[in-house]
Amino acid sequence: MKRIEDYVISIPDFPEQGIIFRDVTSVLQDADGFQLAIDRMMEKLEGVSFDVIAGAESRGFLFGAPIAYALHKPFIPIRKKGKLPRETVSIRYELEYDVAELEIHRDAIKPGQKVVLIDDLIATGGTNEAMVKLVESLGGRVVKAVFLMELAGLKGRDRLKDCEVDSVIVYPGK
Amino acid sequence: MKRIEDYVISIPDFPEQGIIFRDVTSVLQDADGFQLAIDRMMEKLEGVSFDVIAGAESRGFLFGAPIAYALHKPFIPIRKKGKLPRETVSIRYELEYDVAELEIHRDAIKPGQKVVLIDDLIATGGTNEAMVKLVESLGGRVVKAVFLMELAGLKGRDRLKDCEVDSVIVYPGK
Repeated sequence: MKRIEDYVISIPDFPEQGIIFRDVTSVLQDADGFQLAIDRMMEKLEGVSFDVIAGAESRGFLFGAPIAYALHKPFIPIRKKGKLPRETVSIRYELEYDVAELEIHRDAIKPGQKVVLIDDLIATGGTNEAMVKLVESLGGRVVKAVFLMELAGLKGRDRLKDCEVDSVIVYPGK
Repeated sequence: MKRIEDYVISIPDFPEQGIIFRDVTSVLQDADGFQLAIDRMMEKLEGVSFDVIAGAESRGFLFGAPIAYALHKPFIPIRKKGKLPRETVSIRYELEYDVAELEIHRDAIKPGQKVVLIDDLIATGGTNEAMVKLVESLGGRVVKAVFLMELAGLKGRDRLKDCEVDSVIVYPGK
């Protein structure tokens, strides 16, 4: 019986020297791996009361959409600037060498709604922290964030202090 | 009982004058709408024998991944240039005012495999035609392409001659 870890291909020195890239596409391209990934992530939501699932473009869609479908919840896409057609709120945040901007539809989350964030990976947590702020700017509250993989050495968890954080696979390094 | 059409918000003059943008996020952000969309798309696959589902970044992920999960199939992401970490094949194709490039992992599809393409929308069909060519370059065969929405006036279907094409909602115009 293969474990979920066995489906992840690790690629040394991608996208740059010294980084071990953990490839989720190798999980997706195996029917059993994909099933196991989604099922293990959904286990982290057992007993959690929430209204909607949100996920960020693009890899968050790969995991957030199936979980929303399976649990009969709405799926709220958080997208890069300029992609959403209706009225949005946006947030700018710093990346290591750059500035990024994410948007959410203004009517996507109603005040008081409980939101679960789904993503493939938590690394430095910068993008995830921005997602939490977007949800809060609409009056929602992130009750839990679930990741398939976590690079614990980057301490992304420390940037998500007000919600529960859970990852299926925890790598100790970066 | 709402029909799937009732969940789609139409936005006149977006992204430019004269275009009616059909917004799928309004389907996703309603739990019943999202469920109905995926279920209606899966009806189009009843009796179809296939091995894998492929979908293109980013909106193809929103529909392709849940369908792959529900039907216990692999999901193959087709992405923009430079996003996939392992060895890829790529294709360049023309857009109305630009050139785009899509990639797929070389090992994602094995020769002889039967592939289903899933996307939110077929418009001019240019991106979908490029996806078919990518699959064929790996020795796979697209047996069916399923869309949530089709803009029939743009005749995208004519560019997918060698596979069956089916759409849940067909809009007569552009």
